[in-house]
Amino acid sequence: MRDLLGGKGANVAEMTRILGADRVPGGFTITTEACVAYMESGGATPAGLDAQVADALARLEAQSGRTLGDADDPLLVSVRSGARESMPGMLDTVLNLGLTDRSVEGLAARTGNPRFAWDSYRRFVQMYGNVVHGVSGERIEQEIRALKARRGVTEDTELDVDDLRELVTTFKGLYREATGEDFPQDPQVQLDGAIRAVFDSWTGERAVTYRRLNRIPDSWGTAVNVQQMVFGNKGETSGSGVAFSRDEVDGSPEPSGDFLPNAQGEDVVSGVRTPRDIRELADWQPAVHAQLMDILRTLERHYGDMQDTEFTVEEGHLYMLQTRNAKRPAQAAVRFAVDAVAEGLLDRGAAIATIDAASLDALLHPTFGNLDYTVLARGVAASPGAAKGEIVFTAKEAVAAAAEGREVVLVRPFTEADDVAGFHAARGILTSEGGKASHAALVARGMGRPAVTGAGDVEIDLAAGEMRVGDVVLRAGDRIAINGTTGGITTDDVPLVEPEISAEFLTVLGWCDELRTLGVRTNADTPQDAAKAIEFGAEGIGLCRTEHMFLGDRQPVMADVILAADDEARTRAIDALRPLQEADFEEILRTMAGRPVTVRLLDPPLHEFLPHPHDLPEGSPERARVESLQEANPMLGTRGVRLGILMPALYEMQVRALFTAAAKVDGANVEVMVPLVDYERELELVRALIERVAQETGVPDGAYTVGTMIELPRACFLADAIAHYADFFSFGTNDLTQTGLGFSRDDIEARILARYIDVGILDRSPFETIDSPGVGQMLRMGAWLGRKTKRDLKLGVCGEHGGDPDSIDFFHHSGIDYVSCSPFRVPIARVAAAQAAIRAPAGVWA
Amino acid sequence: MRDLLGGKGANVAEMTRILGADRVPGGFTITTEACVAYMESGGATPAGLDAQVADALARLEAQSGRTLGDADDPLLVSVRSGARESMPGMLDTVLNLGLTDRSVEGLAARTGNPRFAWDSYRRFVQMYGNVVHGVSGERIEQEIRALKARRGVTEDTELDVDDLRELVTTFKGLYREATGEDFPQDPQVQLDGAIRAVFDSWTGERAVTYRRLNRIPDSWGTAVNVQQMVFGNKGETSGSGVAFSRDEVDGSPEPSGDFLPNAQGEDVVSGVRTPRDIRELADWQPAVHAQLMDILRTLERHYGDMQDTEFTVEEGHLYMLQTRNAKRPAQAAVRFAVDAVAEGLLDRGAAIATIDAASLDALLHPTFGNLDYTVLARGVAASPGAAKGEIVFTAKEAVAAAAEGREVVLVRPFTEADDVAGFHAARGILTSEGGKASHAALVARGMGRPAVTGAGDVEIDLAAGEMRVGDVVLRAGDRIAINGTTGGITTDDVPLVEPEISAEFLTVLGWCDELRTLGVRTNADTPQDAAKAIEFGAEGIGLCRTEHMFLGDRQPVMADVILAADDEARTRAIDALRPLQEADFEEILRTMAGRPVTVRLLDPPLHEFLPHPHDLPEGSPERARVESLQEANPMLGTRGVRLGILMPALYEMQVRALFTAAAKVDGANVEVMVPLVDYERELELVRALIERVAQETGVPDGAYTVGTMIELPRACFLADAIAHYADFFSFGTNDLTQTGLGFSRDDIEARILARYIDVGILDRSPFETIDSPGVGQMLRMGAWLGRKTKRDLKLGVCGEHGGDPDSIDFFHHSGIDYVSCSPFRVPIARVAAAQAAIRAPAGVWA
Repeated sequence: MRDLLGGKGANVAEMTRILGADRVPGGFTITTEACVAYMESGGATPAGLDAQVADALARLEAQSGRTLGDADDPLLVSVRSGARESMPGMLDTVLNLGLTDRSVEGLAARTGNPRFAWDSYRRFVQMYGNVVHGVSGERIEQEIRALKARRGVTEDTELDVDDLRELVTTFKGLYREATGEDFPQDPQVQLDGAIRAVFDSWTGERAVTYRRLNRIPDSWGTAVNVQQMVFGNKGETSGSGVAFSRDEVDGSPEPSGDFLPNAQGEDVVSGVRTPRDIRELADWQPAVHAQLMDILRTLERHYGDMQDTEFTVEEGHLYMLQTRNAKRPAQAAVRFAVDAVAEGLLDRGAAIATIDAASLDALLHPTFGNLDYTVLARGVAASPGAAKGEIVFTAKEAVAAAAEGREVVLVRPFTEADDVAGFHAARGILTSEGGKASHAALVARGMGRPAVTGAGDVEIDLAAGEMRVGDVVLRAGDRIAINGTTGGITTDDVPLVEPEISAEFLTVLGWCDELRTLGVRTNADTPQDAAKAIEFGAEGIGLCRTEHMFLGDRQPVMADVILAADDEARTRAIDALRPLQEADFEEILRTMAGRPVTVRLLDPPLHEFLPHPHDLPEGSPERARVESLQEANPMLGTRGVRLGILMPALYEMQVRALFTAAAKVDGANVEVMVPLVDYERELELVRALIERVAQETGVPDGAYTVGTMIELPRACFLADAIAHYADFFSFGTNDLTQTGLGFSRDDIEARILARYIDVGILDRSPFETIDSPGVGQMLRMGAWLGRKTKRDLKLGVCGEHGGDPDSIDFFHHSGIDYVSCSPFRVPIARVAAAQAAIRAPAGVWA
Repeated sequence: MRDLLGGKGANVAEMTRILGADRVPGGFTITTEACVAYMESGGATPAGLDAQVADALARLEAQSGRTLGDADDPLLVSVRSGARESMPGMLDTVLNLGLTDRSVEGLAARTGNPRFAWDSYRRFVQMYGNVVHGVSGERIEQEIRALKARRGVTEDTELDVDDLRELVTTFKGLYREATGEDFPQDPQVQLDGAIRAVFDSWTGERAVTYRRLNRIPDSWGTAVNVQQMVFGNKGETSGSGVAFSRDEVDGSPEPSGDFLPNAQGEDVVSGVRTPRDIRELADWQPAVHAQLMDILRTLERHYGDMQDTEFTVEEGHLYMLQTRNAKRPAQAAVRFAVDAVAEGLLDRGAAIATIDAASLDALLHPTFGNLDYTVLARGVAASPGAAKGEIVFTAKEAVAAAAEGREVVLVRPFTEADDVAGFHAARGILTSEGGKASHAALVARGMGRPAVTGAGDVEIDLAAGEMRVGDVVLRAGDRIAINGTTGGITTDDVPLVEPEISAEFLTVLGWCDELRTLGVRTNADTPQDAAKAIEFGAEGIGLCRTEHMFLGDRQPVMADVILAADDEARTRAIDALRPLQEADFEEILRTMAGRPVTVRLLDPPLHEFLPHPHDLPEGSPERARVESLQEANPMLGTRGVRLGILMPALYEMQVRALFTAAAKVDGANVEVMVPLVDYERELELVRALIERVAQETGVPDGAYTVGTMIELPRACFLADAIAHYADFFSFGTNDLTQTGLGFSRDDIEARILARYIDVGILDRSPFETIDSPGVGQMLRMGAWLGRKTKRDLKLGVCGEHGGDPDSIDFFHHSGIDYVSCSPFRVPIARVAAAQAAIRAPAGVWA
């Protein structure tokens, strides 16, 4: 019923069933369908809604024995949003609805507490004016401050009935100013306005931004929960609070939370008054504390997950207003999973299912080793992890510095498409403008670079080459550190600590390995990456790119290979590269100690290994040759297996180096991978070359395998033909996305993504999560056709999607054997693979 | 049986059946399978072949009453190739096989004609040595010339028996020199050698090149025909000739051909002696002439096509050695088709099927109006059509000149990848090196640019900036004209004549229009192109690109639109463009007079309308903005509908201009086309914009349609979703090929294609003929899914494949409604569409 009633509505209904009607205030829910109809009609009340609300309200009145707006004993209600997925604080709420000039007196008389009645009324006028008609919150606070100053008091609770009456009058004035109308005295009008306000808040800027960041579809809409008010502000035996069934930060078993005596819920969360720790509830009202602890256990057992609740105590009686599965940081999620199994609350599979695999990222990035640093400024925690280095103010400087091996942090007012190269080169990114959805934030998260954005106190003066925070002036070359997990910025030389995997995390990962059927390998080009990945549990290398081995010192030699005037010169240059390649491979094979290592033959366009033509003398033959290798669209050009066909000596050298290295390493497990195959004959030709070199280097048949990347749409359509020459397929979902969508990654992420999310075309980058109806179906077609030819064809995925939980779920169900991802994503992939297996067994292709 | 016996073998067998055994010399055929086995084994005689040949030979000996190598009455045979498709002159032939020192005497005695016997023997020794063992043809000719000089004679026929004996001895010496062995005296050895030589000639360079050009698979192999010799060199009542059943140049009904009395076939084709016109046969041997005329009619009736035959007259008896469907130039093909229907030989469909649609190209290109020009030099006719203009020696100059509106011919020793931009800019291409398969030839044909290649007499001195032909020196800026249909080059100011469509061609096109079900539209961006296309029979415009309308004078305004600092400036710039666009559209719509006009909204990346960043001041904001619009892979970047989403004002302006123009033209038939759609929501948004503008400009619903290009693999997979917002799909097969194959057109054609053809990956560019198993299947998937959503969804193709006969056949069978191609390809498309319909009815999607 969650889709229709929203999370809150569904949970309240269920909670009433479990805890009994005397623990949960009565109410009713207006479904998300009504909200959708409201949005689609451009704000018209959906047909029949009024009648249904009237009907439900009549039942609530009958049940409570009170009537909305009654002069004698009025029913008061709260009107709250309730989306399918919780969006805390993003949607509107109106409390104490039903109070009027008439009914406030009834409430005062009936409760014998005029101060409570008038406090409730002033809260309602204030909240209704603000939420439903946009009366300025700042103006409201000014009036309260002014009154307190006149009365010489500091706390709201020190205001007396007359003060509160005066505030009501003042707020009504503000309402008239804002709307041109008197504050409504008809509770039906109030209810109607509040319901519309909740609907409208769904399309408010705050909510839209939140949904973008959390990938909640705009089309869902919100439900509206109308619930009888209970009062935490009825005096010293009343109060309101929030309670988690376990510690919400570290996940330890003791419940945590906050409460405030004599207060309504919004006082607890608004921060106006400092709340008290939930443990102090035991001193204040021990019976209520015992009831709450018991209820938290009951709810946790019922929902099989850690709970986040809201409660109100009205004159000693505990009411539960809401419960939901608690959002929690990664360490708490892991701790809960382990404890839940130990306590017999959940079995392993169910425990693993409670973890948000993507959130584990936070446990795998560097952090500040010293938490006691001087905060220079704060910004938005836009992309997790910590970074430090010298300040650079342009992407160009970042690239230059990185080339010299210096660590830098790129500091910009904001970033644009042009700056993306700088993201690759920098350790972290800091901007003074923009939030979690800014270009800088999106790109940094996509790349796994730590980033702090929107640090408003930081003034960046590009002309002067300075950043200023108050009196502190920093220049290019000065050192800075940022923490993208917290938003902190410092000039202290904080140590960066590499993440360590906790014992609980190891336990969870062990369970995942038992449950999952999908293999997890890593993309690693260096022995260091390979070692890190093994530590994180990688079962092999799914993608060892060899192009990085031709950069640095070796670039000039590689340039000689490409630019050689004749075959002899080319052979000389290639011979110079071979021993270097051999050493690279040997070290990686040793590190992997018998685990499979998939080595991809050279893939990128040759011009990437050459100097820029503008750096060569005008008119020189060298420049002419370099220019002739430039391509309008290098992504679609002379690269991948096309290089192997055009310049077979290069591939031959690589294969020879690999086989020679493998011969020196006991149990070396080599898989040779040919990139960018379109036509089966391309693979046939390169396979023949590989087999010949294997013979020449004395490698026996069966001591290695040969496979291909499937990364072009055509290859998916012709996978049955290609499979004749392949022992394995590895789907290169990055390039398959680029070609399948006709979208270059740089361009979409830099220029298009933000706008496409805004107008509802995309909810995230297709390079982050696989585009399942398009690119995903190409992959499934390739997998199915490949297995038609060879039933036991091994299938892997080595695009960056291999580390994304949603994509991993898709791959599991597509019959893929393993994913390969960056070392830091390996633990995430292990958890996500287990979760996919828990949801359903793997797809099987006949 | 053609696949197994080859064309020649199958035709000889069939001819024997039709004409009777006394008209066709006996023989047998070694199948193509044997050749394939021979090739695959690397030159080993296929198992069982020897025995089968011996068996067949024994039957032939029995039938003829003679024995191979017999000293008394020897059987002589010819050994000829016979591929599935005729490859005239490309494969080897050995005649007079079976002659030895012994049997030549038997032949002399039995025929009473020692000169004939020795002439046959010297021909055999000469041909066998040359063909089977590579004895130099030049050396052989030298010896004959030397002997004739010593004897003081000029004609071969003037040599007497002793001379011929002497030549045999000389040639045997040459044979020993070349092979280290004596000339074989065992006819079995001779036969074996000749068969192997024919097999080997299949993989000879000449044959391989021919197959590349004519797209004949290497894997077919050739059959070998062993046939009893008959002798045209037995004296004055003997002779040999070739005869066409109609005139082979213009197709007129009178048979044409050549013959030579007292000669073997190779004398007729070698050009050593000047042959006589076939009509003179009537004077020479009237009975033979009558028989031949009768046979030609019989064969033509039997095969239902114009025939190309070889015959020999042996002492007054006519033998037919071969017949095949005549290759013929386009005008002859058209004439034959019209006459064949008039004569009742064929019905219209069958007549149209005899035309090679692609060859019609030759009738549609400009030609030299004055055929009586001074030939400066000759080269290879590499790409049809005539062109003239100023000489330029570099692609860069060509581009610069074209930008100034000058017509140029690009002159290079040879061309490379870098020169491709120059091909676009030049009217024609001339190279001094390379043949029909050179880079220049391939690229020029791909683009439809006239080209003459390999003009060996032209010396190009790039350093001096000159081209020299003998004493003539030409410099850049001097005028030149080339004829790519004939290979001619001249400095005369020959007029270029636009092609006119002959009455016969119009007749054929009319029949085609009746038979075809596939519509034919044109790609046209200007009223001139549109008018030309209507003349050629286009039924509408399938693709009107609007980007060309923003170049020239308008480029600065377009640059203002893109670089506008604020919305107001942008609106001003856009407003300046609108009346210009409106005038463009109005003129085109008037020209098309009610025929459908599909207007594609702006497609290319914006940076194409901007100055080059290097031409702007360093550090200027304008340069920064222009640089920020540069993309690494513009093909995959911010273009197509993505522009419409990012900058809706631009699309809105285009749509407004179009609808305003349409309102001024009676019966305007407007189809608005949105390019590069990936996601249905992209089209939904742009369609909403179009519908809004339609309302605002007062265009009623139903007065226009909205559709999309399907040109990305994803769009094919999601075509059912996209079809909800589309009235039509137009498959953009150029871009679909680029993305589906991950192959940019420029790169593949410039760098990769030649090599890929060489190593047998491709047989032609996938941009020329659609890649049916890959890109073609994507198209079919898109078509099928689109029609699943909308049964009556209109489907077109507007890539350049729309003018390629093989691709048109594929589209016809894929249920496509119409193709759209360049104006000059429209007649070809009409014929190809009719041929496809004749082969089978159109595909239907349920």
